[in-house]
Amino acid sequence: MPILVMKFGGTSVANLDRIRRAAKRVGVEVAKGYDVIVIVSAMSGKTNELVGWVNETSPLFDAREYDAVVSSGENVTAGLMALTLQEMDVPARSWQGWQVPLKTNDSHAAARIEEIPTDNILAKFGEGMRVAVVAGFQGIGPDGRITTLGRGGSDTTAVAFAAAFEAERCDIYTDVDGVYTTDPRICSKARKLDKIAFEEMLELASLGAKVLQTRSVELAMRFGVRLRVLSSFEEQSDDAGTLVCAEEDIMESNVVAGVAYSRDEAKLTLISVADRPGIAAIIFSALSDAGVNVDMIVQNIAEEGRTDMTFSCPTSEVARAEQALAAIKDDGVLNFAEVIADEAVAKISVVGIGMRSQSGVAARMFKVLSDEGINIKVITTSEIKISVLIDRKYMELAVQALHDAFELDKAS
Amino acid sequence: MPILVMKFGGTSVANLDRIRRAAKRVGVEVAKGYDVIVIVSAMSGKTNELVGWVNETSPLFDAREYDAVVSSGENVTAGLMALTLQEMDVPARSWQGWQVPLKTNDSHAAARIEEIPTDNILAKFGEGMRVAVVAGFQGIGPDGRITTLGRGGSDTTAVAFAAAFEAERCDIYTDVDGVYTTDPRICSKARKLDKIAFEEMLELASLGAKVLQTRSVELAMRFGVRLRVLSSFEEQSDDAGTLVCAEEDIMESNVVAGVAYSRDEAKLTLISVADRPGIAAIIFSALSDAGVNVDMIVQNIAEEGRTDMTFSCPTSEVARAEQALAAIKDDGVLNFAEVIADEAVAKISVVGIGMRSQSGVAARMFKVLSDEGINIKVITTSEIKISVLIDRKYMELAVQALHDAFELDKAS
Repeated sequence: MPILVMKFGGTSVANLDRIRRAAKRVGVEVAKGYDVIVIVSAMSGKTNELVGWVNETSPLFDAREYDAVVSSGENVTAGLMALTLQEMDVPARSWQGWQVPLKTNDSHAAARIEEIPTDNILAKFGEGMRVAVVAGFQGIGPDGRITTLGRGGSDTTAVAFAAAFEAERCDIYTDVDGVYTTDPRICSKARKLDKIAFEEMLELASLGAKVLQTRSVELAMRFGVRLRVLSSFEEQSDDAGTLVCAEEDIMESNVVAGVAYSRDEAKLTLISVADRPGIAAIIFSALSDAGVNVDMIVQNIAEEGRTDMTFSCPTSEVARAEQALAAIKDDGVLNFAEVIADEAVAKISVVGIGMRSQSGVAARMFKVLSDEGINIKVITTSEIKISVLIDRKYMELAVQALHDAFELDKAS
Repeated sequence: MPILVMKFGGTSVANLDRIRRAAKRVGVEVAKGYDVIVIVSAMSGKTNELVGWVNETSPLFDAREYDAVVSSGENVTAGLMALTLQEMDVPARSWQGWQVPLKTNDSHAAARIEEIPTDNILAKFGEGMRVAVVAGFQGIGPDGRITTLGRGGSDTTAVAFAAAFEAERCDIYTDVDGVYTTDPRICSKARKLDKIAFEEMLELASLGAKVLQTRSVELAMRFGVRLRVLSSFEEQSDDAGTLVCAEEDIMESNVVAGVAYSRDEAKLTLISVADRPGIAAIIFSALSDAGVNVDMIVQNIAEEGRTDMTFSCPTSEVARAEQALAAIKDDGVLNFAEVIADEAVAKISVVGIGMRSQSGVAARMFKVLSDEGINIKVITTSEIKISVLIDRKYMELAVQALHDAFELDKAS
């Protein structure tokens, strides 16, 4: 029988009623003829409670013990989900990560999946079991100890199972009903996308659209796993939610798929830096060592032998960045004049694989912003994305204007 | 280094503060030179919460899923305890049942321990680890799935580890400070015993003294594991608590070690039963099938060919017993006249290995009760125990009078 992977996040299994609701969704797919692998998160709040206990006990904790503790939440949900399915007369059993075994490397608390043997679960499907409920987020390391996969680990577990079992699709049930052209909270015309390409989803995820973890999308793209994002709180039809898939599965699409924003950005400029080879390496090594997540980087020629260097980072990291830069300011190499920080900027990005074949998207974006009187402070581009920094006060206006201009409220 | 097993029950690890307190106790033993195996229960209340969820999800649950769910509480405590010890610079790590692996049979939810390989943990002790924290109550079955040991499973885990590792002692930390000559709540002169023999502890445990599970005491007796019961809520000296040990380790003791009672007993008498072979089997099979826990059984010759049959059971099971007896009353074999139930009785027992060598204990017990005007309704005896049923209203009086008469307030 074809295999389907279904993943339920913490809010979708927050209590026994919601587990029952999720189990009914699983029952619908079983009735259609699928053998189903269900990946469950811990009941919402449980993992945070466990993490809190670990942090309170040991601020610099042993990650192996952290993993042993925090993985327990998923085990509870997996057993309860299996019992709920059995009550509905659906043959089901639970698997903990080590029982599959989902093998990972030894990077405790942030482990990477290395192998998922399929024989145990396939044998049970062969015996008439219809649903394998697997505790997400966890595996077993080379030392035989429990590992966890870090943030978004349950999504990643689901995609990895879909790849290993060559599942027809991986359905991610969550508390939103799909991927939107932009955030509906700041743009009322935002439209749910039926399909989006892996590459676009990756850009949107990294830009702060929280629907799917970047890591799970990367894995899905690498193994060609068709991902569907849909809500566990609504009655579902076969084409509900948003399908994240390969570019070639999308017949026609808008040039721009979506407009993303990131509110809490800061822009820092080093004025008059000595323009010699290795300068950038010194600056960004120092920032990296200080734990500053640098995003955009722009270098302008200012005058003979000197340059201005501009970068962006989250506002919460500005103090750390300034400290790191002060420490290397007068080292005899950089000798820059000063650092100017602008903490009131936001990043706006338009994303779309159509940009590859269609030119003029950047020019159109800049014109739209200009028409609204919005000044662009920094620009960076990739093959399928254009990002700009603007004054934060214009953020909502910019998103709405770009959404209108690229007609994202209309399906292609 | 000598090995010590220390077990902490749910109230002793109920929150992070108590775990810290328990860890300090462990640290004291490590400082004395012991390698320590710590067995932990779930934080108090956690297991009940999990059991509640399972029951609500599936009244006739799959015991394998029950085990997968309810075992998670101990995993949390084990990890937190290991982290707490590490914070105190005591080298420690946690083990879940399947990691040891503690191998059990396949009786899920009530599994019996079959084997505890010692090599993993001993190897770590050899590398300088000082404390192995093991999640109690759980193991792994022949099918590779998690099993739990049923009620009192953590005590049993502790004793089994002490046996497997030939530990010097198994310390059971709980919320009472030892085993008493009788219940201090009804006899102010009750005295904590320094030592008690396994056989005595078994009788007291089965008589309702809730300090240790019968099963763990049986196991300790079989393997000669010295058990110490002590409080995790008091500062401890080396001879704190009560040592449960082999008879030969107790140099001198009182003839009677303790007086136990059981409040909610009922006495049922079948009047004029046909006195033929097989009659008792019919009666007690019927009661057993109905789930009635029969305790004392006495048969008196009443008249030619007829007999009276008396037994006791918990008051909560009287209705079930009467129903079961009614069903076989007129089957052509028993033809007893009627069933008389007395639901206002209590059981009083005196227990002591000294009875084996010293006669007259029963006579003295009966005289004490008679002097107080207390009528004895049923008597049963074993090698080291005499039990009587009396009117419940005299229960406290009987316990106090016997405690005085056998001078249990004085150490031998």
